[in-house]
Amino acid sequence: MKGYFITFEGGEGAGKTSILHSLNEKIYKMGYDVLATREPGGIEIAEQIRKIILDPENTAMEERTEALLFAAARRQHLVQKVLPALEAGKVVLCDRFIDSSLAYQGHAQGLGIDEVFTINQFAIKNCMPDVTLFFDISPKKGLERIAANKDRERNRLDMEKIHFHEQVYEGYQMLANRFPDRIHSINADQTIEQVEKDALNYIISFLKKK
Amino acid sequence: MKGYFITFEGGEGAGKTSILHSLNEKIYKMGYDVLATREPGGIEIAEQIRKIILDPENTAMEERTEALLFAAARRQHLVQKVLPALEAGKVVLCDRFIDSSLAYQGHAQGLGIDEVFTINQFAIKNCMPDVTLFFDISPKKGLERIAANKDRERNRLDMEKIHFHEQVYEGYQMLANRFPDRIHSINADQTIEQVEKDALNYIISFLKKK
Repeated sequence: MKGYFITFEGGEGAGKTSILHSLNEKIYKMGYDVLATREPGGIEIAEQIRKIILDPENTAMEERTEALLFAAARRQHLVQKVLPALEAGKVVLCDRFIDSSLAYQGHAQGLGIDEVFTINQFAIKNCMPDVTLFFDISPKKGLERIAANKDRERNRLDMEKIHFHEQVYEGYQMLANRFPDRIHSINADQTIEQVEKDALNYIISFLKKK
Repeated sequence: MKGYFITFEGGEGAGKTSILHSLNEKIYKMGYDVLATREPGGIEIAEQIRKIILDPENTAMEERTEALLFAAARRQHLVQKVLPALEAGKVVLCDRFIDSSLAYQGHAQGLGIDEVFTINQFAIKNCMPDVTLFFDISPKKGLERIAANKDRERNRLDMEKIHFHEQVYEGYQMLANRFPDRIHSINADQTIEQVEKDALNYIISFLKKK
C-alpha cells in the first residue's frame, strides 16, 4: 500500500476528534494528500448499519450482535473509502478503528479482546493501521471535558456509566502494551495546543521514516 | 439445553421450507412443543439487518460485510427466539442456520469455510444445532422446481447464476463430510411425500434417542 494509515484512539473527551481535523489541515499544508474520516464516513451501507447500532429504540441489542455490526460497518467503510485513498498514496487519518472495538466491546463489555479481534481480522483482512495514536487521559478528566461542552452530540454509548469508561481506558492500556510498535500514547492531559503538537510531531517523524 | 435444535439446509428449490412447515404440524401432533422459525424470524433488530442485506439498491455491498451482517442477524435471532425456546424444552425447527453461511459465503463466494466459520462461532457461541438435515438435490433440478413455481418470491440471492448454485451444492457436500455426526443428508430428489417421510423418520429417531 502506497499511503499512510493512521488511526486516532481514546476514550470520551480525549480531544482526538478536534485534533484530527486540525492536523488534517496542517498535514495538507505540508504538501500531503490527506483524507480525514471516521466510520461510517458517509458510506451508505455503513451508515445504515450504524443507524441500527445507535437507535435508542434497539434496547434488545445483544453485545455480540453489536460487535458484529461494528465489524460489518468497518469493513464497508474500509473497502469503499480507506483502501482507495491508501492506494492513491494519501495520508488517511481515521477517527477510531479496530482498537475501539477491542477496548469497548472486547474489554469493557467483557466479550474478550481476542474474540473481538478475530471478527475484526475477518473484517479488515491484513489492513491494520501503520500507526495508532492513543490519546491518553483519565476517564474522569475526559468525562469532565464532555460535561463542560454542552453542544456535543450525545448518543447511547456516551451515557454509559463511569465504571464502563474506566474499563475502556484499561482496555486501551492493555492494547498499548500488546502492540507497542503500532500504538503510540500521547499525553492528552495537557493544553490542546500541546497535545496537538505532540501528535503532529509523531506523525511527521513517521511520514519521513516510511 | 433441554430442547432439541434442528436445522434445515439445502440449495434453492430443495423443498426444505414447505417440508419444515408440514413437519412442524406433525411433530406438534405427536405431543411436542415445536417452534418453526427462520432468520430473521420477526426479531426487529434482525429484520433491520436483513433489510440492509437484501436491499437491491445496496449494490456496493462487499462480501465480507454481508457475511458479518448475516452473522449479526443470526446472533440476535438466536438470543431472542431460539435460545428461549430451547430453554423451555421445545423442538426448534430452523430454516437455514450456520451451514448456509458456510456453503454460500464460505465456499460459493470464496471467502473460505474456515474464515466464515470463525465469525459464526463468535455469533453462536457453542450453540450448534443438534441435528442438521441437508436436503440433497442437484442445483439444476432445484432451480427447475423454482422456475415451475412462479409465485415464489424472488430476491437478489435467487438471481445468481447456475455456477454459483453448483458451488453452494459442493459446499454443502463438503460440510456433510466434515460434520458427519451432525449433518444428515436426505435425498430430496423424490416425491415431496417421500422426502417428508424420510425427514420425519430421522427426526423421530433423534427425539427418541436424546
